Amino acid sequence: MPGVPPARYGYLGPAGTFTEAALRSVPAADRADLVPYGSVAAALEAVRAGEVDGSMVPLENSVEGSVATTLDELANGDPLQVTREVLLRVSFSLLGRPGTRREDVRVVATHPHAEAQCRRWLRDVLPDAEVLLTPSTADAARAVSEGRYDAAVASPIAAEHYRLQVLASDVQDHEGAVTRFLLVSRPGPPPRPTGADRTTLFAFIDDDHAGALLALLTEFAVRGINLTRIESRPSGARLGQYFFSIDCDGHLAEARVGEALAALPRSCASVRVLGSYPRADGVPASVPAEAGDGAYRAAAGWLSRLRDGEG
Amino acid sequence: MPGVPPARYGYLGPAGTFTEAALRSVPAADRADLVPYGSVAAALEAVRAGEVDGSMVPLENSVEGSVATTLDELANGDPLQVTREVLLRVSFSLLGRPGTRREDVRVVATHPHAEAQCRRWLRDVLPDAEVLLTPSTADAARAVSEGRYDAAVASPIAAEHYRLQVLASDVQDHEGAVTRFLLVSRPGPPPRPTGADRTTLFAFIDDDHAGALLALLTEFAVRGINLTRIESRPSGARLGQYFFSIDCDGHLAEARVGEALAALPRSCASVRVLGSYPRADGVPASVPAEAGDGAYRAAAGWLSRLRDGEG
Amino acid sequence: MPGVPPARYGYLGPAGTFTEAALRSVPAADRADLVPYGSVAAALEAVRAGEVDGSMVPLENSVEGSVATTLDELANGDPLQVTREVLLRVSFSLLGRPGTRREDVRVVATHPHAEAQCRRWLRDVLPDAEVLLTPSTADAARAVSEGRYDAAVASPIAAEHYRLQVLASDVQDHEGAVTRFLLVSRPGPPPRPTGADRTTLFAFIDDDHAGALLALLTEFAVRGINLTRIESRPSGARLGQYFFSIDCDGHLAEARVGEALAALPRSCASVRVLGSYPRADGVPASVPAEAGDGAYRAAAGWLSRLRDGEG
Amino acid sequence: MPGVPPARYGYLGPAGTFTEAALRSVPAADRADLVPYGSVAAALEAVRAGEVDGSMVPLENSVEGSVATTLDELANGDPLQVTREVLLRVSFSLLGRPGTRREDVRVVATHPHAEAQCRRWLRDVLPDAEVLLTPSTADAARAVSEGRYDAAVASPIAAEHYRLQVLASDVQDHEGAVTRFLLVSRPGPPPRPTGADRTTLFAFIDDDHAGALLALLTEFAVRGINLTRIESRPSGARLGQYFFSIDCDGHLAEARVGEALAALPRSCASVRVLGSYPRADGVPASVPAEAGDGAYRAAAGWLSRLRDGEG
Repeated sequence: MPGVPPARYGYLGPAGTFTEAALRSVPAADRADLVPYGSVAAALEAVRAGEVDGSMVPLENSVEGSVATTLDELANGDPLQVTREVLLRVSFSLLGRPGTRREDVRVVATHPHAEAQCRRWLRDVLPDAEVLLTPSTADAARAVSEGRYDAAVASPIAAEHYRLQVLASDVQDHEGAVTRFLLVSRPGPPPRPTGADRTTLFAFIDDDHAGALLALLTEFAVRGINLTRIESRPSGARLGQYFFSIDCDGHLAEARVGEALAALPRSCASVRVLGSYPRADGVPASVPAEAGDGAYRAAAGWLSRLRDGEG
Repeated sequence: MPGVPPARYGYLGPAGTFTEAALRSVPAADRADLVPYGSVAAALEAVRAGEVDGSMVPLENSVEGSVATTLDELANGDPLQVTREVLLRVSFSLLGRPGTRREDVRVVATHPHAEAQCRRWLRDVLPDAEVLLTPSTADAARAVSEGRYDAAVASPIAAEHYRLQVLASDVQDHEGAVTRFLLVSRPGPPPRPTGADRTTLFAFIDDDHAGALLALLTEFAVRGINLTRIESRPSGARLGQYFFSIDCDGHLAEARVGEALAALPRSCASVRVLGSYPRADGVPASVPAEAGDGAYRAAAGWLSRLRDGEG
Repeated sequence: MPGVPPARYGYLGPAGTFTEAALRSVPAADRADLVPYGSVAAALEAVRAGEVDGSMVPLENSVEGSVATTLDELANGDPLQVTREVLLRVSFSLLGRPGTRREDVRVVATHPHAEAQCRRWLRDVLPDAEVLLTPSTADAARAVSEGRYDAAVASPIAAEHYRLQVLASDVQDHEGAVTRFLLVSRPGPPPRPTGADRTTLFAFIDDDHAGALLALLTEFAVRGINLTRIESRPSGARLGQYFFSIDCDGHLAEARVGEALAALPRSCASVRVLGSYPRADGVPASVPAEAGDGAYRAAAGWLSRLRDGEG
Repeated sequence: MPGVPPARYGYLGPAGTFTEAALRSVPAADRADLVPYGSVAAALEAVRAGEVDGSMVPLENSVEGSVATTLDELANGDPLQVTREVLLRVSFSLLGRPGTRREDVRVVATHPHAEAQCRRWLRDVLPDAEVLLTPSTADAARAVSEGRYDAAVASPIAAEHYRLQVLASDVQDHEGAVTRFLLVSRPGPPPRPTGADRTTLFAFIDDDHAGALLALLTEFAVRGINLTRIESRPSGARLGQYFFSIDCDGHLAEARVGEALAALPRSCASVRVLGSYPRADGVPASVPAEAGDGAYRAAAGWLSRLRDGEG
């Protein structure tokens, strides 16, 4: 498309991290300019400021748990929208400059989290190597490319970036860790429902009385909507005040989800809906027949006839 | 209105009963033809068949409880609509032919229920009178007018009908008994909401598991809708199957009531809504701010903007 | 048992009614003195006063619904206990003096309720007979025995009582009507659990807010306890105040039922438990495995070990 | 106490971290041997193996969120007990060797999380200093004491440990961050209730149907028990299976808490209670009168009399 400036997407940098890999997995990023930011806050602020069309940020890791900063930055400030999620299997590589042999590695650099996930492998395979820590795995890779260390434990994508050679793949101690990333943009129409969608929201409650959370969850349960994640977070405003970070099945364009969302103000002080988007795992929502859009249409028709006296 | 045939209303007869009094209290009955029927079933069937524009039937008495026949006849057969309720204080009179003196009364006739409610008065005031039973208090009054008995315990309206004289008023032993009547017509647009309305419905559940009734009531409770009467009735279809006769606050034209009704099919096998109508006692519904029509409009607007991406 | 005075039981009279038949079906009544009372109130007051060991009263009829008087008399006054229920199929007979032929019947007497249930049969079989009403079917039978009428529509038991002959059996228009009676005594240890028990209680709530009934029912539902009957009744104390007459599955000696009852004061102003007794239909309660006494014992043991630090 | 070996407590090391500071704030640690462990897993395993009497581990940080590793290590493996919580305000110091002047600092070492929380201060106060990362703030302090860097951003306690001088206090960018630590031991009797207690548990549910979490929370809500934290965690067993990490008000020795815990197996596949302990903030639980121990005793007495027939 000549004349159209390329899209720009931000991500939690630096270049060569898993977050960049997550962003590159999205078709929209194909011909886009990708801009690394030094923090989740900066990456999201760039979206709000219009510097980028969207930013990829990590939300949770199956080993490390939620990224609290991401939750807090999304819950506060101008509203943003989630348009996509990416699930990425965590897989580290040992990277060195071309020509490096594994047995020559004396100093390995990596991020503390990566070190924690690869400790046994490093002890077994490189028992004599010293391990140094860097602010990110990408920083480690860059340092290696600059000749400062012999090798880095980093994401495979860092090899490309810093023209390094893969000395070993899949070096993490445990298989199966997965990180979930969100692509966040300024508010706009949500992606179309696919039948396998997820909706992300924050619900703020004024006090911590026993019934507030129950009332909130009842609105989902009576409509047969599964929650896939719930986490209370201190709201920061004052001690004892909470908000709930909630992911549920379904799309806000669907009747049952829309009605549940519209009901939340009855039990919550405020609600922030971050949007609906296709589930990365493609698992279709299990919708009870009596809570599907067809059932809602039928009920609405029945109610309408009742109100018109044609019941 | 020349050329327009007068309206016709049925009621549980015979003439001169409290049900006729209830019907006469309704302005629409003013110039209408009033037709007594021998049973609730017949009075309602006449509505269904188009013989009358509506029928007045008793629903419950504060002393006697619900009139099961009325519940069952409304729950089965072609759907009907309740357009009005009437509350009538139960007040019996002792009626005799003009000229009769109370001390001359030797034989008193009345209906068994009236006899039960006036027993002490009769024993105290007319200790020597014999009490005979008739199928209705109106039958007793008619028999008195025909000279068969000396006096009748009947509704004050029966005095007019049978040209009798009131020998004593308010002869019931206990004050405060009230009967609630319903004016029933063929389905049509409901009366306009007044802010002090009631909605009457039947909910049929397929089995008696502990959660079915709870699920049903949850739909009312989450929307702040008070129930003013609930009663389980065997459905007749098979043992252990029930329906619930429910009165709730509010009008089906209101958002919270409409949404609650539309939700019932999620927990009920079927629902029959008999309509919304002004409360006879004029007590306005207590609507939580977050469940009022304004809150619903606001939530619908918010949801709509969210779906359009303008949120 | 020489020296022991025979038991005495009251019932809603007069003699020869279905209530007497219900009482006679109870083994304990076999050698007992049976005393008819003129009203439910009188029959229950006799229990409270110690005149009788217990009284049989009607609670509900599948056609007529609940007997409101029985509910109100049990809910108020000194507490009483229900120790047994009896289900009696409603079956009327046409009774005449020995030697009467059906075709000779000119005047039939019966109670208005019985007349309503046999109207078609009387019209078809005795089209020319006049029908007179009496305060009870037993009164009709007695009057026939005294030669005042030709025949009575009454309970079969009335034939014995008044030495009448059965001219026709099962004369009701509809099969399947059943009346449920309760045997009521002064408070005492409840009958042993049988696995097919019912518990009867009244729950009074202070106001009619939407959540009160829900909270009450939740206590049953979370413990897997089915309700078999629920009915709201105006409490009489003031307008808008209700109590709920509730029958549920299970016995108060069972853990889940006991815990649910003990929880009711959290949502009710007061609770009156009328007792637990075997279901007349012998249908065993369906108890979810996780709510059975075994599960409760296991949970109590676990909690106890937890509290002792042996968990 | 001669002859009694001193107590031994572990903690997430190395020495000089905030976790050590949390442990030192506990009286029991006063004369005890304190043993640093390289990971939460190792610190907890040492408890299970009997190497130490207890271990202090971080659970959540108001900025960083929950420590997922701690949750997962407590949820799996042999059961452990929480006997105490410690809240520690996060307060970093800039530490140097004695005699170091702030203006001479060229190279600052710290842990990445601390770097994130002090970034602005470092940029403003030490704009020219290079920041290097270490596996922990204590490692940074030790390296300074060894002369490898000029200064460390670390916990105040590290100054003592490594004989460093405080060059600046409270250097974090934001006030108010608090970390919550748990003292974990082998199962044993819980600390006595204080009226301001917290109970920590994990609830595993078999599937993610909409009602499972609701059922679980209902058990707390009906008994007036506030939740102070809830977080879903993937259970690891299979995709879509969750457990909930829950903190609630109250002590398992209290009736309402005990009954709620005993009820959880009705809605959960399994439950692991980690214990009850005094709240570090001393905020007493708000217990509705009808859910207090007195109300439970009254209800139990009432139920007992009812079962004995003395009701």
